[in-house]
Amino acid sequence: MRFCPNCGAAVVKRVPPGDSLPRYVCDSCGDIHYQNPKLVVGTVPEWDGRLLLCRRAIEPRYGYWTLPAGFMENDETTAQAALRETLEETGAQVEVAAPFSMISVPHVNQVHLFYRARLLDLEFRSGAESLEVALFEEARVPWREIAFRTVGLTLRHWFADRRNGAFGFHTGDVAAR
Amino acid sequence: MRFCPNCGAAVVKRVPPGDSLPRYVCDSCGDIHYQNPKLVVGTVPEWDGRLLLCRRAIEPRYGYWTLPAGFMENDETTAQAALRETLEETGAQVEVAAPFSMISVPHVNQVHLFYRARLLDLEFRSGAESLEVALFEEARVPWREIAFRTVGLTLRHWFADRRNGAFGFHTGDVAAR
Repeated sequence: MRFCPNCGAAVVKRVPPGDSLPRYVCDSCGDIHYQNPKLVVGTVPEWDGRLLLCRRAIEPRYGYWTLPAGFMENDETTAQAALRETLEETGAQVEVAAPFSMISVPHVNQVHLFYRARLLDLEFRSGAESLEVALFEEARVPWREIAFRTVGLTLRHWFADRRNGAFGFHTGDVAAR
Repeated sequence: MRFCPNCGAAVVKRVPPGDSLPRYVCDSCGDIHYQNPKLVVGTVPEWDGRLLLCRRAIEPRYGYWTLPAGFMENDETTAQAALRETLEETGAQVEVAAPFSMISVPHVNQVHLFYRARLLDLEFRSGAESLEVALFEEARVPWREIAFRTVGLTLRHWFADRRNGAFGFHTGDVAAR
């Protein structure tokens, strides 16, 4: 059972007039409570050909390595979200450049967006959500301990583009396994 | 006053432990109700150098012209959302190509994402949310009657890129007026 955030009455799931999908509808106050995908935004922070990864101190995927990223918040832009998440998770100051990858993850209702970024110095440290933070050259990336497929895809695209001398914008999606 | 969708108790807005922003927290069941930006996804549908626009039959901006776009739904990818919204609002079948613009609108907690698209035929019509649907060459675009700044920016980028013979990926943000 679900309740209306607006008035506290019980809500039912049904297709509202003029709509095509079932929604949580409140018959008491008339509110319709839409549920939509969330943006997870982060960076691919580079220092001299090496990338900054964090080992997760939280679930899901505790102990696995990831790029700094997290849920975009209200009142910010995607680039601001990328900068904020990088600072929160790695302590690193970065210059955010162009968007680099955007990958839909429909089975968890998320879209993952990564920007290229340049570390401004080597002042990084693990934060509340990271066990360790470290720079990796391609041959040293812990490929078998990457937390999420969107991160693995983004890292592979980044190293391939760097070898080719031109960074693109990569899009796609990952399906439930 | 707000209520918990999970248990119906009244919620309070405060910063949860380990967080940095105020959230709606339920002291009865412990749920935290995050609020995040929404993705509005659409297309720039082309037929022989002309673009398909819709005149809005709904608020906000009733009567103004826009590109086909709408809120991304759960369980779909961004490209699927672009295709679906285009079909719903214009009746048009399109082939969705590369992402073309991504513009943050932080004062309304939205990110607008437009894909380039090619109309497969001229079978378009106004839907429940459109008063009219029509193709416009650049000189005929109703520039003073465009519904949203993200749409105006996207149209300008599209015609400029077409003149230059190369389509890019354009990002940015618009602030509250």
